[in-house]
Parts: sequence; C-alpha cells; structure tokens
Amino acid sequence: MIVVRFEPSGLRCHCEGRVSLLEAAQKAGVAISAVCGGAGTCGKCRVQVRGEVTPPTPVERRFLSAAELAKGIRLACQARPLSDVVVTTDTFVAGQILTRGVSRSVEIDPAVRKRWIELNPPSLEDNPFDWEDFRRAVGGELGGGAASLSFLRELPVRLRRQDFRGTYVAVEGVVIDFEKGDTAGEVYGLAIDLGTTTLVVKLLNLASGSVEAVASGVNPQRVYGEDVVSRIQYASASSRNRRELQRAAVGALNELIRSVQREAGVARERLYEAVVVGNTAMLHLLAGVDARYLAQYPYVPAFRGPLRLSAREIGLRIHPRGRVFLLPAIGRFVGGDTVGVLLATDFLQRERLTLAIDIGTNGEIVLGARGEAVACSTAAGPAFEGATIKHGMRAEAGAIDAVWLNNGDLSYHVIGGGEPRGICGSANIDVVAILLSEGIVETSGRMLPPQELPPSSSGDLRRRLRMGPEGVEIVLAEVGGKSITFTQRDVREIQLAKGAIATGIRLLLDEAGVKLQEVDEVLVAGGFGNYIRPENAIRIGLLPAVDPDRIRFVGNAALTGAEMALLSRKARQEAVRIAEKVRYLEIAASPHFQELFAENMLFPAADEVPAMWRPPR
Amino acid sequence: MIVVRFEPSGLRCHCEGRVSLLEAAQKAGVAISAVCGGAGTCGKCRVQVRGEVTPPTPVERRFLSAAELAKGIRLACQARPLSDVVVTTDTFVAGQILTRGVSRSVEIDPAVRKRWIELNPPSLEDNPFDWEDFRRAVGGELGGGAASLSFLRELPVRLRRQDFRGTYVAVEGVVIDFEKGDTAGEVYGLAIDLGTTTLVVKLLNLASGSVEAVASGVNPQRVYGEDVVSRIQYASASSRNRRELQRAAVGALNELIRSVQREAGVARERLYEAVVVGNTAMLHLLAGVDARYLAQYPYVPAFRGPLRLSAREIGLRIHPRGRVFLLPAIGRFVGGDTVGVLLATDFLQRERLTLAIDIGTNGEIVLGARGEAVACSTAAGPAFEGATIKHGMRAEAGAIDAVWLNNGDLSYHVIGGGEPRGICGSANIDVVAILLSEGIVETSGRMLPPQELPPSSSGDLRRRLRMGPEGVEIVLAEVGGKSITFTQRDVREIQLAKGAIATGIRLLLDEAGVKLQEVDEVLVAGGFGNYIRPENAIRIGLLPAVDPDRIRFVGNAALTGAEMALLSRKARQEAVRIAEKVRYLEIAASPHFQELFAENMLFPAADEVPAMWRPPR
Repeated sequence: MIVVRFEPSGLRCHCEGRVSLLEAAQKAGVAISAVCGGAGTCGKCRVQVRGEVTPPTPVERRFLSAAELAKGIRLACQARPLSDVVVTTDTFVAGQILTRGVSRSVEIDPAVRKRWIELNPPSLEDNPFDWEDFRRAVGGELGGGAASLSFLRELPVRLRRQDFRGTYVAVEGVVIDFEKGDTAGEVYGLAIDLGTTTLVVKLLNLASGSVEAVASGVNPQRVYGEDVVSRIQYASASSRNRRELQRAAVGALNELIRSVQREAGVARERLYEAVVVGNTAMLHLLAGVDARYLAQYPYVPAFRGPLRLSAREIGLRIHPRGRVFLLPAIGRFVGGDTVGVLLATDFLQRERLTLAIDIGTNGEIVLGARGEAVACSTAAGPAFEGATIKHGMRAEAGAIDAVWLNNGDLSYHVIGGGEPRGICGSANIDVVAILLSEGIVETSGRMLPPQELPPSSSGDLRRRLRMGPEGVEIVLAEVGGKSITFTQRDVREIQLAKGAIATGIRLLLDEAGVKLQEVDEVLVAGGFGNYIRPENAIRIGLLPAVDPDRIRFVGNAALTGAEMALLSRKARQEAVRIAEKVRYLEIAASPHFQELFAENMLFPAADEVPAMWRPPR
Repeated sequence: MIVVRFEPSGLRCHCEGRVSLLEAAQKAGVAISAVCGGAGTCGKCRVQVRGEVTPPTPVERRFLSAAELAKGIRLACQARPLSDVVVTTDTFVAGQILTRGVSRSVEIDPAVRKRWIELNPPSLEDNPFDWEDFRRAVGGELGGGAASLSFLRELPVRLRRQDFRGTYVAVEGVVIDFEKGDTAGEVYGLAIDLGTTTLVVKLLNLASGSVEAVASGVNPQRVYGEDVVSRIQYASASSRNRRELQRAAVGALNELIRSVQREAGVARERLYEAVVVGNTAMLHLLAGVDARYLAQYPYVPAFRGPLRLSAREIGLRIHPRGRVFLLPAIGRFVGGDTVGVLLATDFLQRERLTLAIDIGTNGEIVLGARGEAVACSTAAGPAFEGATIKHGMRAEAGAIDAVWLNNGDLSYHVIGGGEPRGICGSANIDVVAILLSEGIVETSGRMLPPQELPPSSSGDLRRRLRMGPEGVEIVLAEVGGKSITFTQRDVREIQLAKGAIATGIRLLLDEAGVKLQEVDEVLVAGGFGNYIRPENAIRIGLLPAVDPDRIRFVGNAALTGAEMALLSRKARQEAVRIAEKVRYLEIAASPHFQELFAENMLFPAADEVPAMWRPPR
C-alpha cells in the first residue's frame, strides 16, 4: 500500500499495485489534464514528484528535457510510485481554480468556533447558574443561543471535572461541547459531495483550512435505481422505504468518514460539522424528507434550504451533537451542487459574461455576470455516463476513454491498459466527432452505410462500418471474437443528450438577451467534464462553438463550494445569496422548447466549428 | 358523581358522596375563605350557587338574610350539591386576585399562534418549494423560523391532502403543524404546577383564556424522598436513576393531562404548549438535568432558564411537536414558582412596598416595589406541612385544621368531620398561638409544666397538660384511647420554622434598608397560606406584626403565573424580566444570619402583636 499525496489540494490516494500517478489522481479525485486519456501521446499530464518513482520512460524522454526530469517533472501517465510520494499538480488550470477557491480567496472563519475559557468557580455569595455563567464566559459568540438539552444534562459534571476550565465548541451559535484542556486547534469538519453515483468525503482542518484526507465511494442507493426518479419512487412507497434509502446513503458516508478519520488521525468527537452538496433529490433523500412531488408534475421540492440538521437526527457519525449544513437550491432541478459550483467559481462576482455547465444525467447550466444570473436544468439523460449506449460503461478500468484518428484509422486508449470492455462518455464524444468530420454521420444524425460513403473516405474507416441488428454501426475493437461497436442508435442517444444541453444554453442566452459571442468564459464542472476534449465536445455541439481556449474545466467545483462553506461563514452566506439571487428558468415551460430542442438535435455543420481535436504529437 | 364548577376560575371538582361546597373547593384547588375551618362559626365562606343543593341549615339562617338565600347566596361549609352546580366565589380576595391576574389584566396573546392560510398551488412556471412557499404564506409570524425536520417530512403530503389550505400552528415562531380545515379557534394549552408534593394541571382555551378543566394529584417522586435533596441524591447516582425520576413526574403529569383532556373534550393534538412552574430542583428533575450541585455547597443550579423544551424530548403527551416552557428562576432556591407568584401579583409594577411570602418546606420571600425587588429563600423545613410534628399530618380528611379557645378550653375542627387522626399546619399555628397567649409557652419557647402555670390560667387547659416521654405536652384530643398531643418538641420545630422565615424577612428588610412599618401589603401565597389565621401567624411571629388587614392570601399564584405566561407573550417576557431583575440574597452568606436566626427563634411578647384570632360569633 503506497500513499500518493497531491499538492496543493491535499487529496490522497492509497494505491495497491503499480498504478500510474494519473490513475492515482483519478482515484483521489484530482483533475489532471490528460488530453490523450493517458495514451502517452499528448505530454500534457506534467506533474512534479517528490519520492521514489519508476525511471523515466521513452515517452517521457520525448516530452521532457533532462533539466525538467532532474527537477522531478514527470508525466503522470507514465510514472508509477515505488514508495509514498508527494505529487504537485499546480500547473493545471482546474487544479488552480480548486486551490484558489479554497486556500486563497477564502478567509478562514468557520461556523465552528472553539475557544479556551476559564470560569470563576461559583461561590455561595454569588447567584450562580452553570449554564448562564458558562454562556457569559463564552461571550458574544452565542447569539440568544440556547443550550441543547443534551448538553445541559452534561454541563454540570463537565464543569467540575474540568475545574471550570476548558474549550467550548459552538456551531452557528449553538454550544455543542466543552472539552477538557485547550483543544482550540483541534477543529475539523467534513465537506461532502453526495452525488447520485459517487460520494466524496473530505476532512478539513478548520483552523488551517488544509485538507487532511479524502475518500470516495459509490452511492449504495444505486441498487434502488440509477436515476433519482426511481429512487424517489421507491422512497415514496412507505416511510420504511424512505428510511431505508436514507440509511443507505448515511451508512456509506459513515464508512467514508471512518476512513478519512483513520487516515487523518482525527477522532469522531473532533468532527463538528459537515457541509453537504448534492442535487435537490439527493439532499431530500439524505434528510429523509418526502421527495415524491419532485418526481411528479409540476415537480416541487419540499424545501429550498439551506437546511440545518443535527448529525444525530440523520445518523451521521460525527460529534454526537455535531451539525449538518445542506447547501440551498436555486430551483427544482438546480440544487446545492450547482450552488457549490457557483460559489467555488465566484460566479456572481465575475465581471464578464460566464457560462457554467455541469454535465451529468441532468445538465445544469448557469449564465451570468456582475451579480445577475439565470440557471436551468436540462434532462440530458445518462448517455454521457454510458448508461444508454450499447457498449457504454463508466470511466473505470477496461473502458475506452479516448478515440482519435491515426493515419486514417481509429486509435483508442483503455483505462488501466489491457483489453477494452466498453466505451465511456469522453470517448463517445470523440467517436461522434470523428464520424461527423469524416462525413460518416450527417448533421441530421444519420449514419451512412458503407456503400454511401464518398470515395474519398478512408478505407480503414470504411472497413469498420457494417450493418448490425440496429442498423449501421462502426466496430471500435474486436476482443475475443466479440465486437465493441458504436451504433446508429448510440448516435441518436448522444444527439438527444447534447440537444438537451444545447437547448438549455440557447434558452438561457435568449432569456438574458445576449449572444454566444459575448460569453467570455465557459466553465465545465463535474468529474466527467475533466476528461472530455473540448474541440470534440464543440464539434458535436455539446459545448457551444467558442474558442476552445475560453473553456475551463473546474473539476469537482461543487465539492470545492462545500469546502468553502465549511471554512467560511461569509462563503456560507454567499451560498444562501446565490440560491436566492440566481433566477431559475424552467425550460420545459418555455413555448420555444420543443422547436429549439428539435433544432439543437442536429449536429453542427463542419464550417460552424473549430478544427477537431487530435492528440498532440 | 356530581360536577361542581367554580366561577370565575373555571376550576371543577368531580365529587363523590355528599361533600360540602367547601370541601369541593379544596379538592378543586379553589381558595375559599373559611376562617373557622368549616366549623360553621365564622360565616365567611359565602358563595353564590346555581343548581340543586341541600336546603339552608340553621347555621346559614343565622348568617344569611332571606333575600340573600333567595339569590342563591350560601355558606360553602354548609351547602352540599345534589346535582351539577355552578358556584361563584368572586367575593373572595384571593379568588379576585387569581381572576384579575388571568382574565382581566392579561391581554390574550399566547405564544401559540394559529391561522387559516391558503397557498397558491405550485405551477411549472413558478419556482416552487413547499416549505419556503408555506413560510411565505404564514408571513411575519415566523422570524427566521426553521421547520423542524419532523414537520418538513410531513409537509409535502399534508399540503396536497389539504389542497394547499389549512390552519398553521406555530409556537414561539416555530411551525409545529398544518391542520386540515379552519381550526384556528381550537387552540389549547396547559399551565402546570410541578410541586414537590402536589401536581396541578390546568387546561386553558388560549383563544378565550377560559379554564376548561383542572386536575391535581400527588407527585409520585415522593417515594424517592419527601424532600428535594433526597430526590436529587437518588437522581445523581446514575443516569438511569435520573431518567427514572424524570419519568415518574412526567408519567403522573401525563395521567392528569389525560384527565383534563377527557373532561374538557380536547384532543391531545390540540394541546400545543405547556408552561410549567416549580422550584429549581423540580424543574431540573423534569428536564432530566443533573441537579446534584444544587444539593451540595455552594448549591449551584444547572440553569436559570427559561428553558424551552420539546414535549417529545421529555415525554410529555401533548401535541407530538408541542413545546414546553419552564419559567426561569431568580436564584438557586427561589425558582420559577416564585417568579409565577410575582408575575400573578404584578409585583414589579406595585407602587407601594410589598412583601410576598410563599410558605412551604422552603419559605421564599420577596420584598420590593416600583421595579426593584430582592428575594431570598429560607429553609423553613417541613414543620408546617406536618412532617416533623409528632402527630402532624397533611391537610386531608381526619386532620385537625383549626383550633381555638372556647370558654377557656380548646375547640377544634376536623377536615371531613368525624374523629381526628392528627393535626395539620394551620392548626399547629393556632395551638402555639393559644399556648403563647395563655402563658403556657414562654417567648423562649419553653412549655410550662402544669405546676408552673399561673393560678389565673384556665382549669380546662391545665388539665390537658401533662408530662410525656418528650417533656411537657398538651392533649388536643383522645380518640379510641389514643391521645393526639402537641409537645414541647413540636413547639421547638415550629420555632425553627418560623424563625427561619422571620429571619429571611428581617434580612430582606435590612438589605432594602426599610422598616416593617413601611410595608404596605403582605401577600401570602401557596395552598397552605390559604388556611392559616393571619392573627395567629402574627402571634407566633411567622408573619410580621402588621395589621392583619394588610395581609392578603393569593392562593396558588405560582400556577396563576403559569397561566398568564401561557396566555400572553408579554407576561412571558415579564417573567423573564422578573427572573433577571429581582436580586437574589443568599441569607446563609449573611454575617448576621446566625445571630438573627437565634433572635427570631424567640416568640413575640404579647404586647408586640395584635389580638389573637378567635372564630367570629
């Protein structure tokens, strides 16, 4: 077991076997620009390593100078750790944004307060009351703050055991503990990304702001349905079901919490608060609140939030009187996760028009600048996550995650190397982009059968085309007599998904009365976004036709937003302001929706977009 | 079973057998002036009756005119109900104060708010959120008020079942329910007196202010000790013990609550709040809060309060999300019950110097006027409650509750008639007063043996004196060969008890720098106070030597205070103000305490006090 620690995010990965630093980064949730998907052809995944790693490969010698190698600069896709190493990734744009968000522009001022106090021991002459005397000693920190009954029940014994001295702990003005000794420096909290598919738990030191540990896992609610609607339907059947789903999520979070605790060496009793981001449905399920009307016309969430819960009432294993803060939502399907993205990217303070896109089953899109913004959600469907694609799969070992033209034929990269088992989202986009640029798919989405191809087309590509059971298809790979194909129907799925997002962008631009050319920057959030090739995403019309240099991948900015809200009361207030200030546009209610959706289902013509992506030499 | 309803308090008694209206009043907790203790000799217990009662007795014909009898004026000690009757007692001072407190000077403005609201059903075009839309419809009533998670979990289904219409219920700015239909008029709450010995629960209509039902019972914590210190010690041994004691009190309260619910025909779900008065220790035990340091030097309560609890967390069976408000304390042994007395008697607003005394195991005493007051508690001990008196007993059937001189010999009254079984507090005071005025007890407290009595003394009295195993004693009654006596040791107990209270009064006067003569009114609170003869209490030095006309018995004013705090937010604020404003004087810390206590142990000389009480002809 080798520990790879990434700077400056502080994220860590416990690796078994000889993984590359790129794979370790993916596991740790660190976004590293790997344009070629780890094929060793782009040379962009440069990192600086301290610690023992495998010697430079020929690929590295090609991209890096001897001086760079001497400084420990390596390609993450090539170098493999041989012992615990520290990897610095700060040359990467998204990494910088994540870092800037948390460590630079946020003044550390958490809602969790700890301070050493000494009380005068009570005397007969005074008129002492334990709680009121304690509150007076704490001072202005507590507004009209009452004690929880549970704390009040412990206080008298605690005061005397500690000789009327100790460190109080308060969260948002509510006292939750009075600890023996001066423990003011031992103050920790959790930032939690409660994804539909993936859970990430980060343990932060609230005094220094540093990330002490991170762990991620799969959301076990998946067994109740991949999509949130199935889960909501299950949860709505009975309050028993609701509790079951609630406990599933909390149980998995508790395992991750134990894991980060162990790694960071922090006791449960020192974790005072958790800030959670997630979409509206996931936050409802976490709180155990009925979400059935979010899944039925006219789609109404039970709450916007922010919601302040006690850890105990939802079963989260942090301090027994710890608090949980759920980031508020902007609208029914634009939830606390989007608020997190906007918080992390300082969205409302941006001077120039910005478009933020978080691509997932729902594509949440926000457009705005200078304190004004409008947001919408589009039902992109799970195509980009591989679910409705014939040989689609998640971005895990065995998945083809990048495809490119190489001397007139297709080349691809497989995560973890070895034989491919299927194709994941980023490669889906590559394939469609190639088929479009080679004239094999028309702008209407029709895939040409081999006999209709222009004579100029590549013979290698033509040979890969065939008629399958569902119409025309292209064979990407043959593995043990089985073909991995991409079919006409798959093209249609991608069309639907990209059409939904493109329609959302269109409607937001119309709503704001601006043109695409006026957009200064396009922020792409979410784990998926980090692995797509912007040129190809533009080629298929998923991302708008802007200069690829104006596209920035901001990684898991939702989680960054949670970290900021955990570290800073001001950031927390800003999150509340964002939720209230950003207008929600219900695109399904737009009279132009159907018309625009039909229009945006079409792929862009070749002259509407920049040149297609090719792996750099 | 006959129901006797008392106006204007609204208190009721369910009577079995042929009790007198006076006995019914005692059972219902209504204070009726019965100077002779129900002997039919004072004619003061005048009431007005509607309904069928026994015909006028010769005693009544002696005290009442034919015109009065025609109007239904009767003596409570004589008339017995034959059917359900309504008895008006508003001619009585204490009754008036209770009434004035609750029904007249309190503007009804409870912390419980109910109002019918209609929401616009959510539409696709809006950006609806159930909770936030609901909160907007409720309006300013809720401050930054959050929803409880339990309410949030129910709200979505509730809104739709009720077609987005209904009556919200909020307590102190927290929404606890949203009821079907317009139920704004069905708003009830409880005023609870959590006494060391006795529990009283009153059910009030919070819309009209009327008392709908009342029930009282014994505090089952008595099995853990008559005094609070024993109970605290038991509770401190383990958290299991603490819960056990807590549940004992709550269990008994829940039974009384069921009883008043049945009587008033009010569902549990319509009881939204309970306001509780009690001494500091009892309120700690109710909340399940550790009170051990209240029983150890330097005697520190865990909280002053007010404490706001959820009914669920202490197990009180009102609305499942109902709230419980515990009145705050002034000092360690001057608790929420005293605050209730001061609230009910408008103490801080009084123009002229007033002394309030609540006599029990502890005698709480408050002196003040025009917004300034100082309070203390004296350890009177349980002598007045009969506990340390040889033949002492509580004021229940079989107790001698009044003793007077009748042609040179003793006469007495027995509660419920029949043979006496013992002597209760009010009669203890009578006996000592008689022994003092007859020169049988010296001011030092020494009881003279028969041979030392002056020749002028009554032969009948002399014959009752004898030497018992504990020294000189006087025989009050002989029943079935057994004597009910009052002994030298009993005199000493009364001396200690009255000495403690007199010392407290002395120290408060000194602290305030005023003389007894400047005191305009002496308010005597508590059930016990209602049955003592002021002249005799003054004679023995329990009450200060003021004109008996300046003494007012205010009944269970602590409970009246709870009713006021239940009915009026302003009164509740006033209670908080009283707790903070009234200074606490710790008499045990006074350098003069021992000296003054020794001095006040002496009984007053005959020329220091007004004439002794005798039953009016």
